[in-house]
Amino acid sequence: MDEVGYILHCDKYAINMMYAHWKEQTHNQRCVFDMFFRKNPFQGGYVVFAGLERLVSYLRELKFGPEEIEYLRMQEEGYEEGFLQELTSFRFTGDLASVREGEIVFPGEPLVRVKTRVFEALLIEAALLNFINFQSLIATKAARIKQIAGDDVLLEFGTRRAQEMSAAIWGARATYIAGFNGTSNMLAGIRFGLPVAGTHSHAWVQNHQSEYEAFAQYAKFHPDHTVLLVDTYDTLRSGVPNAIKVGKQMESEGHRLKGIRLDSGDLAYLSRKARAMLDEAGLSYVKIVASNDLDENILADLKRQGAAIDSWGIGTKLITAQDDPVLGGVYKVAAKETAGGEWIPSLKISANPEKVTTPGIKSLYRIVNRLTGKAEGDYICLEGETIDETQRLKLFDPIHTYLHKFITNYTAMPLLHPVFEGGEQVYELPSLEEMRQYHRQQLGLFWDEYLRRLNPERFPVSLSQKLWSTKASLLEKWTVEEPEES
Amino acid sequence: MDEVGYILHCDKYAINMMYAHWKEQTHNQRCVFDMFFRKNPFQGGYVVFAGLERLVSYLRELKFGPEEIEYLRMQEEGYEEGFLQELTSFRFTGDLASVREGEIVFPGEPLVRVKTRVFEALLIEAALLNFINFQSLIATKAARIKQIAGDDVLLEFGTRRAQEMSAAIWGARATYIAGFNGTSNMLAGIRFGLPVAGTHSHAWVQNHQSEYEAFAQYAKFHPDHTVLLVDTYDTLRSGVPNAIKVGKQMESEGHRLKGIRLDSGDLAYLSRKARAMLDEAGLSYVKIVASNDLDENILADLKRQGAAIDSWGIGTKLITAQDDPVLGGVYKVAAKETAGGEWIPSLKISANPEKVTTPGIKSLYRIVNRLTGKAEGDYICLEGETIDETQRLKLFDPIHTYLHKFITNYTAMPLLHPVFEGGEQVYELPSLEEMRQYHRQQLGLFWDEYLRRLNPERFPVSLSQKLWSTKASLLEKWTVEEPEES
Repeated sequence: MDEVGYILHCDKYAINMMYAHWKEQTHNQRCVFDMFFRKNPFQGGYVVFAGLERLVSYLRELKFGPEEIEYLRMQEEGYEEGFLQELTSFRFTGDLASVREGEIVFPGEPLVRVKTRVFEALLIEAALLNFINFQSLIATKAARIKQIAGDDVLLEFGTRRAQEMSAAIWGARATYIAGFNGTSNMLAGIRFGLPVAGTHSHAWVQNHQSEYEAFAQYAKFHPDHTVLLVDTYDTLRSGVPNAIKVGKQMESEGHRLKGIRLDSGDLAYLSRKARAMLDEAGLSYVKIVASNDLDENILADLKRQGAAIDSWGIGTKLITAQDDPVLGGVYKVAAKETAGGEWIPSLKISANPEKVTTPGIKSLYRIVNRLTGKAEGDYICLEGETIDETQRLKLFDPIHTYLHKFITNYTAMPLLHPVFEGGEQVYELPSLEEMRQYHRQQLGLFWDEYLRRLNPERFPVSLSQKLWSTKASLLEKWTVEEPEES
Repeated sequence: MDEVGYILHCDKYAINMMYAHWKEQTHNQRCVFDMFFRKNPFQGGYVVFAGLERLVSYLRELKFGPEEIEYLRMQEEGYEEGFLQELTSFRFTGDLASVREGEIVFPGEPLVRVKTRVFEALLIEAALLNFINFQSLIATKAARIKQIAGDDVLLEFGTRRAQEMSAAIWGARATYIAGFNGTSNMLAGIRFGLPVAGTHSHAWVQNHQSEYEAFAQYAKFHPDHTVLLVDTYDTLRSGVPNAIKVGKQMESEGHRLKGIRLDSGDLAYLSRKARAMLDEAGLSYVKIVASNDLDENILADLKRQGAAIDSWGIGTKLITAQDDPVLGGVYKVAAKETAGGEWIPSLKISANPEKVTTPGIKSLYRIVNRLTGKAEGDYICLEGETIDETQRLKLFDPIHTYLHKFITNYTAMPLLHPVFEGGEQVYELPSLEEMRQYHRQQLGLFWDEYLRRLNPERFPVSLSQKLWSTKASLLEKWTVEEPEES
């Protein structure tokens, strides 16, 4: 949809650094950048990774057109023509490995690993983060809702409050990966093949002489897909009785009212009352759909109160991740290639220990206990390291290293998969159905304690001994000289 | 950029209601919808309206192409061919009035008023709200920041955390209307002509043997546009001293270091220390730029602590409106035309009094005191009503009606301007510079009490006596019949 011409969806500092590298003729130096996040959103225990497909399309189309070159020529920096010339043949020529969309991931893990010329690595930073941060955030929120909703039907209804158009569209896609059943947004439907759903709003009721007439007319024109919105005037005294009247007429004409929708008021009370009224009238097949500022916390509460709701329309709080609207994913250099072709691990120091990066070209494994079928921990090691599954493996906390356990009977599942090699796409993007299934399957690897909505246990993410030592020795070497007298 | 083909950026219920209207042949009935919001975000006193230009482009391009028609043909609803045929000639044929971008607006005021066939009014709901809600939210957040920053330079730096691409782009535009000086996003630059800014990141420093070398190289290639990021290793012991060394060399070569940037740590303390070090070295012209999770609240606090910061890079908290990421604008029917061509005001009842709408085709005025030059209140009346400025005007609270005042020496400024008439655009979109100036000018109409960051006074928004009576009598008439026995 949006990729062509969007090479300028980048920060200006990227262009300025590219220019400086080109000037010093280091622009072809290769480096490795990792994308990772530091903290789970929603005070939760995990993130659902999403956004790779968007990133892949973007990387495939990454070209400077004449209009973009002309725009750069006009910048106050006065870029030399040679640089602009270089940009005309720019494309992504690197390697990229990524975890799969729908994967359950944790703080500090390399989720996307880019190995390419510094020239390219810099350019793609902002777009990569923009795409992955947002879709992963929404997929995570959706997964939390799905966890509470169980097998109830979940619909994404948030377009009008989404943060502009592409958030609505790509956000709807992310909710589907995490187990939602559809969206109200038709553009997400045509673009991604998502199921779309929707019947009528208050406006339809207000546009008729009476609520009954509005319902009857709507049912006449949509005999097999009618969900009646019953709260325009008074849910229990007017809406539900009118819906029942129309439902009975539909029956007599050989159709079935599909559902009623509650969009305001006390959903626990109203749904129980409406359920009883529908059942009483012999309409126990009519489903109850609820909407109105819902999320996993309200769902949990409504379920606790015995709400009789079959299907949930989730809008604002999902599509904006309202209670925690930012996934703070970052993109940091992990290794650099020397002129001699040697790879040197690179560390980002910070006075804030949480912000110190893990250096080196890394692999990521999920260690699954063969007896329980459950994940014991994730394991980050250097790319060359092999895991010998016949040997016991030590998992330890990289900060509080005395916290450790040994695993013996396990499988080490690699989580990073090659997506681009030498600029060529080597990964066949799974269908959305496949991503959704994969996500569902991966959830099964985790004990509930790690996934629960409130106060989850922290899932252990370990470094290999070799990686831990590499990091420790780089930290050790780091000193700041006293400033010279000037 | 994005408008062509985006007619399906709508909720499915719109299509289903359109279909039902077409089936009952009421699709050409005209109606009036108002877009308004109910609550100021950020616990603030106002909203800055933005997004009209996006809406105008969308309405101008509103056509169903063959691909969209084919998609609708495949829907399970089984729309009749006649309906799809009707859609092929669909376009926006109505009237639209709107407040100007940059306008200061308040809860309950009609901001966009659409008068058109119900067929069209339904289709555009989701996109209209999606565009206006988001840009207005971000313009409001930006205006709050601008209020605290005064004449300091403000830069939008949020792309990587924005909620997908169009939020980054259109959000950057909204911040500019509200007084920001530029953005880091190049696509927003090329698309809207926004000034773009950016120098280098930590990656540049890490890609060199030493911080000093990184600075010196960067300054060599950007002799007139260098802002050095000084916190990669240790701000005061390494970063600032290295920047000073490079700054002095630049001086000796006839250039000037433009600034240094602080991106972590205690910005109040570090900026004061860095300022002293720069001044001591004779580099008092070098500006200090700060970034790192800033917003109006942190700015206010840093200023109170005497931070020596000239320029602010504002990212995440601005572009996502992190502390209140939703503007809950709604779109409700206000009047309907009868078959005889008469307009009937329409009321939306709710058990929640705040959700009751104000019926009728309405105008909106700002009542400005000629002596003080300050706004006394806003005034909503029915379209036909005229305000006689020679007569005193009563402003009263529509809920607590005993709260009132009379104004005598005033000007009544109309705030709703015709944008489309009979589907033709009759409004020349102002340039961004004009919108920005207009916004600045409008701010001058308000006493600080209404605009302040914390605990603002509520700005009075009054209804005309006639409008108030219309609403009261419609409310009076509203009753719900006891349900019939079924």
